[in-house]
Order: sequence, then C-alpha cells, then structure tokens
Amino acid sequence: MDAPVNAPTPSPDHRMLLQRWLPMLRWLPRYTLKTLLADLGASVIVAILLIPQSMAYALIAGLPPQAGLYASTLPLLVYAVLGSSMTQSVGPMALTSLMTASALAPLVAGGIPPLAAAAALALLSGMLLLGFGVLRLGFLTYFLSQPVVSGFTSGTALLIAAGQLQPLLADSTAFGLCALALLALAGEGVSRWLRSPTQALLAGRILPLLVLIALALWAAQHGHIATLGHLPADFANWHWPALDAGLARTLFVPALLIGLVGFLQSITIAQTLALQRRETINPDQELVALGASNVAAACVGGLPVSGGFSRTAVNAQAGARTPLAGVFTAGWIVLATLWLGDWLALLPKAALAATIIIAAARLIDWRMLLSTWRFGRRDGIALLATLLATVTLGAVEGVAVGVVLSLALFIYRTSRPQVVEVGRLPGTEHFRNVARYAVETQTEIVLVRIDEQLYFGNTRHVECALSDLLARHAGAHELVLVLSAVNDVDYSGADWLIRLQQTLRERHIRIHLAEVKALVREQLERGGVLAALDGELFLSANDAYNALGQPQAPDYVI
Amino acid sequence: MDAPVNAPTPSPDHRMLLQRWLPMLRWLPRYTLKTLLADLGASVIVAILLIPQSMAYALIAGLPPQAGLYASTLPLLVYAVLGSSMTQSVGPMALTSLMTASALAPLVAGGIPPLAAAAALALLSGMLLLGFGVLRLGFLTYFLSQPVVSGFTSGTALLIAAGQLQPLLADSTAFGLCALALLALAGEGVSRWLRSPTQALLAGRILPLLVLIALALWAAQHGHIATLGHLPADFANWHWPALDAGLARTLFVPALLIGLVGFLQSITIAQTLALQRRETINPDQELVALGASNVAAACVGGLPVSGGFSRTAVNAQAGARTPLAGVFTAGWIVLATLWLGDWLALLPKAALAATIIIAAARLIDWRMLLSTWRFGRRDGIALLATLLATVTLGAVEGVAVGVVLSLALFIYRTSRPQVVEVGRLPGTEHFRNVARYAVETQTEIVLVRIDEQLYFGNTRHVECALSDLLARHAGAHELVLVLSAVNDVDYSGADWLIRLQQTLRERHIRIHLAEVKALVREQLERGGVLAALDGELFLSANDAYNALGQPQAPDYVI
Repeated sequence: MDAPVNAPTPSPDHRMLLQRWLPMLRWLPRYTLKTLLADLGASVIVAILLIPQSMAYALIAGLPPQAGLYASTLPLLVYAVLGSSMTQSVGPMALTSLMTASALAPLVAGGIPPLAAAAALALLSGMLLLGFGVLRLGFLTYFLSQPVVSGFTSGTALLIAAGQLQPLLADSTAFGLCALALLALAGEGVSRWLRSPTQALLAGRILPLLVLIALALWAAQHGHIATLGHLPADFANWHWPALDAGLARTLFVPALLIGLVGFLQSITIAQTLALQRRETINPDQELVALGASNVAAACVGGLPVSGGFSRTAVNAQAGARTPLAGVFTAGWIVLATLWLGDWLALLPKAALAATIIIAAARLIDWRMLLSTWRFGRRDGIALLATLLATVTLGAVEGVAVGVVLSLALFIYRTSRPQVVEVGRLPGTEHFRNVARYAVETQTEIVLVRIDEQLYFGNTRHVECALSDLLARHAGAHELVLVLSAVNDVDYSGADWLIRLQQTLRERHIRIHLAEVKALVREQLERGGVLAALDGELFLSANDAYNALGQPQAPDYVI
Repeated sequence: MDAPVNAPTPSPDHRMLLQRWLPMLRWLPRYTLKTLLADLGASVIVAILLIPQSMAYALIAGLPPQAGLYASTLPLLVYAVLGSSMTQSVGPMALTSLMTASALAPLVAGGIPPLAAAAALALLSGMLLLGFGVLRLGFLTYFLSQPVVSGFTSGTALLIAAGQLQPLLADSTAFGLCALALLALAGEGVSRWLRSPTQALLAGRILPLLVLIALALWAAQHGHIATLGHLPADFANWHWPALDAGLARTLFVPALLIGLVGFLQSITIAQTLALQRRETINPDQELVALGASNVAAACVGGLPVSGGFSRTAVNAQAGARTPLAGVFTAGWIVLATLWLGDWLALLPKAALAATIIIAAARLIDWRMLLSTWRFGRRDGIALLATLLATVTLGAVEGVAVGVVLSLALFIYRTSRPQVVEVGRLPGTEHFRNVARYAVETQTEIVLVRIDEQLYFGNTRHVECALSDLLARHAGAHELVLVLSAVNDVDYSGADWLIRLQQTLRERHIRIHLAEVKALVREQLERGGVLAALDGELFLSANDAYNALGQPQAPDYVI
C-alpha cells in the first residue's frame, strides 16, 4: 500500500516541527501532474456547489449575498497552507450562519453596519480558535454531545426554514412554491433513480444549478419577481476589521460558541474522511487552520467560516487529493463573481430562499430524535431540551443550555455508580453479579465490585450501598473491594477509604482490595490507603476468594 | 448484640411510612430510665459548650449574641422529632455564620435590620433544604469535594480570625492577649496531659468555661473592659419572618450554599457516628429535619443552624442515646439565659473574640493542605483556588468557585481516559498493560482496554488513541475492546462504536468485545452496536485471545 500523501517526510527535527505547523510542506514536494488534474476536477464541482450555497448562507446570517462569496475565497487559501486535512473544504455554513444572525441582531438594531459586525465576529471567533489551537484546548468541543448537536441542528433548521418563508412567498406564492418543488425534485428526487452513488451525488449538485438558471430566466421575462441585483465584486478591499473592547465583550460568548460549533463540524467530517483514507489529521493544527481562515474571512469582509459536511464530502467524492483543490475552488469563485456577476444578479430571491429551506429540511434528523429517545432518558432529555431552548431562546443560548445540561446529567450518572456483590461462576475464575448469575459465595467474605472511578461525587453513594450490603451479611468479616472497574481515585476517594476502614475496624471487618490497576495503586499508595488497610492486596478476585476462604474458625471443623 | 435503638419497629406499612417521616416514633416507645439518665448527663455537658459557642457564632454573623442562644432552643426540639441521627446536635456553626455575615452585609448596608435579614436567610435556607429533602436532592452536597471543603474551611477560618482581632484588642492589648493565651491553654494545652480521651475531651470543654468566668470577674473589677451587656431573653417572641420576592431573590444563592454547607457538615458527622454505632441514618430525612430546624430558627429570631463536628462529637462522647438529649440541652439553655442572663452579660467581648479565634485556628488544616497537594495536582488546585477565592472574593463565592472548578477538573479527567494495549501474563488468564508487564501478544490481534465509561466527552480521545495503536500494528485484523472498566455507554458512545466499525471495515479490521457488563451489553444492544459489529462478543479477554488466535493464514503452518 502507498504511504498516505500527508505522511511526514523523514527529515531533521526542526523540519518536522515546521511540517507540524505548516502541513503544506508535507504534501507540496510530492505534488504531481496526476494530483493536479484530480484537484482541478474536484474544484470545479465544489465551486458550482459553493456559489449559490455561500450566497444563501450569507442571507441566513442577515448579510448581503456577496459576503458569502468573499468568505469563500481567501479563507480557502489560508486553510490550504495550514490545514492538516487533505479533503476539508471551508466556507460559510448553515448552523454558524444562523448563530451569526442571532449574535448580530442586537448590534444591528443598535446601529452597527451588519457587514462590520459580521467581520468583527469572524475575527474574534478566529482569534479564539487560534488561541485554543496554540493552547491545545481542542478537547473543549468534545463536550458537544451527539444529542446536543442533533437537537441544536434540528432547532436551528426549524428557525432557518421559518425565517425563509417570508422571502419565499413575498412576490408570488405560486412562483415560490414551484421553485421549492422543482429544487427539491432536482436535489433529491432525481438522484434516487441513479444507480452509482457518485453519479447521484453529482446530479444532485448540478441539476439544482440548472433549475436555478431556468428560474432566473423565467423571472427575467416576468418583471415582478425580485432578484439579488448587483453583486459588488470588491475582492481587493481587504482591511483589518474594527474590534474594540466593548464589541469584543458583547460578542465573546457567541464568537466562542460559533467557533466551537464550526470546529466540531469541521473536525468530525475531516476525521471521518482521514480515517477512511488512512490519512492523519491533527486536531490542534485544525484549530489553528480554522482560526486563521476565520481571521482571513474577517479581513475580506466575510462572515464566520468552517468546514461543512456536504461541501467536504463532495470535494472528496469528486476526487480532491490535496488542499490545493480548495485554492482552485477559490479561484473559480473569484472568476465567476467577476465574469458572471451580472448573471448571478438575475437569481430570484425566492429561489435562493427555496434552496435554503431545502438545505434546512435536510438538517432535521427525525430518526435520530426517535432513536436517541429510545436509547435512554438521559440522552433523550438532553436532545429535547437543546431543541426547545434553541427554538425558544435562540441559537447561541440553545447550545449553552445543551452543553450545561448534558454535563450535569453525566455528573449525576457518575454520582450513583453500581455497587454489586459478586460471586464465582462455578468451575471458572470469573466473578459476576450475584443478582444476575447463579454463583458461589461464602458467609465470611463479601466481594463487592464498584463500577465507577471513586471521586468526591460518589463516595457517599458507595458508602450507603456498602452499608446496605454489609447489613445483609451480618456474619461477614472480610470485605473484598474488586476494583477492576475503578479507573481513578481522587483525594476524597482515598480519604473515604481510610475512614471506611477505621469505621469497619470497630465492627471487626477487614477491607481487602483486588484487581487494582497500576495507576490506581499509585494513587492509593500516595493517599495512604494501602498503609491504612487491615487487609491485603490481591491480584484477582479469585485469589482473594481462595486465600480468605480457607476454614479459619473452629466452627468450620467437622 | 442488641438491635440498634433506631431500628424500625416491625409493623404494618402505613406505620413504617410514619416512622420514616417521624423517626422519633422509632425510639420513643423504647425509651427507658437508663436512656433518660444518659441523655440528661450529655445534655448538661453540651449546654455548657453551646452557651458561649452560640453567642460567639452570632457575633461572627454580625448579630447580637442572644440570636445565637435563640437559635439553640426550638431548632433542637424540632430536630429531635424529625432527625434520623441519634447523636446529632444542631445549632449555629462557625462556617455558616461567616457565610451569613457575608450574605447579610449588603442588606444591612441597605437599611434592613440584621436580625430580620438573618431570620429571612434562615427561613429561605430551611425551605430550600426541606424542598431538597422531599425531592430527594440530598446528593447535591456530594459535589462538595474534600479539597474544596478543606480550602473553604481554612479560608473562612482566616477571615473569621482576622475579623476578631479588632474586638480582641479594642479595650486592652494585654487583656486580649492574656485571654487568648489562657483560653488556648485551657482548651488544648491541659487536655494533652490527660490519658483518657473522654477526660481530655470534657476537660477541654469545662476548663475554658472556668477561664471565661475568671476573665469576667476580673473585667467586672476593672471597669474599662467592654462586656456583652444585657441579653434580652425574648424566647416567647416567636413570629414568621418577613420574606418578600425581592429579598428571596437576593438571598437565594447564599441561602442555597449555606444550606448545602451546613447539611454537608451535619451529614458527615452523623454518618460517621451512625456507622460506628451500627445505627442507620436517612440522608433525605436529615435534609427535612435540618430544613425544619432552620425554619424554627427563623421563627425564634435566630440565624441559620446545622449540625456541628465538635458539638455532636461531645454529645456522643458524653453518652447521649437519643435526640431527647438535644431537647434537654435546649431546656438548659433557656434556663441559663433566664437565670444567668445577668452573669452572661458580664462576659468581656474580648474574651469571646479570643474564643472565636481559637475555634477558627483549629479549623485550619495545614496538614491536609500539604497532603492534598502531594496527592495530586487536580485536588491541590481545587483546594488552593477555593481557599484563595474564599479569602479574596468572600465565603459564598469561595464555595461556588470551588464546586465549579472541581467539577470541571473531574470532567477534564474523564475526557482523557487511559486506553491501553493488554497482553496475557504467561501461564495465566490475566491480561495486563503491555507497557508495564512482560506479556504475550499476537501480531493479528490487538487487545485494548478502555479505562473509562464511553460518553460524548471522550469518544474522540479514545478514537485518537486507537488510531495511534492501530498505526503501530499494521498487520492487525482483529481489534478486541476489553470493556471490564467501561461501566456505561451513552448514545454518543454507541454511535461512535458503530462509526468506528464502519471505518475499520474499509481497513479489513473486525471489532470484538470482551468482558462486557450486563448493563453495558443492554446499552450496546439498544444502540444497535451489537448488530453493527463484524466481530463477536466474548465472555473474557482470554476467550477472545484463544478463539481469534488459532492459526488461520498459511504463513502460520510450519
């Protein structure tokens, strides 16, 4: 098998470091004509997808359509230099665009021009991501759980679709509904009849473009349909956006959440594709690349950008081999805006609204809503609460509610671990729950498995469970704690074990430990638990069972 | 062995329920003359301790001393009826008194009389605890970790001691320092020379009282020392305190934290003593009892109350058998205030300040500060941050910072679990970390143990770790996930496992599971993971190792 195209070049240490921060240095020296042709081909397809999409997402954010086009140029170049994924395609994205709209609304109401506010938001978001990348804080996105993301996405999609009903039906209800039906058919209806997934995917991208052209021509002939109008192609008007302390304070939370949601989308799709293609990506480097791309978006007067599912999937499917495909895509977008600007100006606003509604409808995942609820109450509640908070309170607040709630439910779960008495499966060395299996036990010995790390949040629960257990075993004088499922013990946990031994000593019960992991043994050592124990440390539950189970008292002698 | 005095009486269901909510019904029918004498004896000792202590704690809270005495009457009666602990002694407590001072300061500055504000705070705190008890939310206190409580206690003690320097030295530096030295000597110096712990404990309580009497007599002869002055014995002036919505909103967070800190103290000492004495306590019932006690404290014009370490330990050591000892203590306090009021009025303020400083100094646990830091960075940081926040921001804020920080550090820990490759210890069925032990492995099979529940916060970390592992085993086609330490899988975890199998399928790697707990198996079933796996489910790692390790490829045939 060939080495992956982005494998590091064997080289001295300082060049390895340079390659870590500028992943472009890994693949550029190996660039061939074959790769060039593949990248060029993919870039055409992605550009066709990205032009209407980026204008539509700018409209969702409450900005003029050209902001979306601007955001699809320089950021792609920056990502090509810094990004570690070979297939990621950055640009405006539906979710973050709606979050942008909800973050900008109060500022715009306060008199700040929308484009300036959007650029400030993209700049702040980009700087936060850059900072996270340097500080290696990418793990923060891990706390956006599947159900929270799903609830947030569905809620956002509902808001987006509802917001586009007005532009869809403003000029003519008939035209709006026809546009919606035709675009839906072109996007999905037709591709269902095609056998090859690549054909279906490409048809699903190119047919809607043809429908858009047809709608534009029809609208041009019938004067009463509003169109986008003149799109200024101000690509050279780069400047560092204004961001004072007051604005930064107002935009801090939205910028943080937009950055995290965007990064989560990017890293998810990039990681999936990398694993499939046996390439590697570096999450912290992705943060840096996405952060720099957002700073670039801010400088060209665009809105926050991120990697997107459909865009990146199309890029990979169409054969892109390196991030240079993105550079070519940016080139096509600039050329299209310069040369086809008058044609783009003819696009009916209602047709773009229809595009957005179709994209939004695809984001709602009813099946996931149902399957999450069926899976378990904890996940179901997190999803539903996030969805409701998003719809009622707003996109930024929805994410915040979801993250806090899902963490609270997680902590609640860890605070009440299973504490189960185990016994030996006859004829084996395996120990299982006495309530679920027919197992052997002995009167003198109680073996208890604790199914969670021991930390301040659950020692009291474990103590109650142990009390109950010991109350049911009045004759027991040996308590074996089987720690196979205990992965960590904190200070409170260690201190609690010492106090437990002191208390049980008065009841003539010794505590033994079995199946203690190396890391946990070190913690117990440092915490003084091993020195305080009356009992012993056994390798396995079976060893403890055999060693302690010998007849010791005269009662046992026949 | 005798049945514990608070074991439930065998009786029909409705009486069991009544006994659950009114634990008094369990022990009152068995009350004997012997128990009465024991309770009476203990009550005298506790009253001697409680009279100066409760006045001192009222002063810490910024209230007149009689508020402390009031709070040591009716609440004790209420606790006797509702409390499930046989030895708990409630009353004002140093930590909650300082929190009360910090909560009341802005209100008092705003013109609300301190006693009215304190009563409102006690009422709100009591109602919150009652609510938590009925809703069974007692587990909330579990999240006050050992290091947070220790840092908070030390920080509070520093604040308390610093606050008492002014009254200690106000009249006469010499008198203040003498009082401090004499009381310190009486409290601890002398008890060190006594052999029996009971003698030492009682001496440590009674000698300071004698010193206080001596100081009062000396001050009465030398006029320039300020004394407490007239203590109004208004025990009959009960009324429901005023608490409007605005006041409730202002006091909500302090009332919540005071309630939780007080409850934590109470439940800790009560649980320790119950375990030693083979009695049982019911945490939710304790919440109800403590909540009702605080409502009672509010009605008699006192300040928030809770169980206290020293008070409860003295009560138990002095022989108390039932909560009736608390009722007798309350009686002695009423009688002492009525009959000895003129004598208590003679107590020098500086002497009481000295008592408080000595009590505060005892609260600072330097040894714990050091041992926590040595135990681990996570716990050390939590302790230090709580201490600093308490001293710089205030008592209520200190607890809040500590709780949030320790939970954040806990979540961080669970987000990066150990993912270790394991191999077989030669000649056994045990599997251990390949990095720590000399174990057997096979080229075709990688066995990996995941040391944490799989949840949204760590799937990505686990995936990175697995990617790294598989990259080092290019020839592996069987991945066995050993789940002995996985206690829970949430929706995100299940979904991730399915996606992992899809991705690895393209690399011709099968995933197998081993040592799956019953609970986790059900979750994997519900989440569709078992149906999606290419591999099998094995009882143990050893079974997987043996079953998959048969020579399959011709290379293995000699």
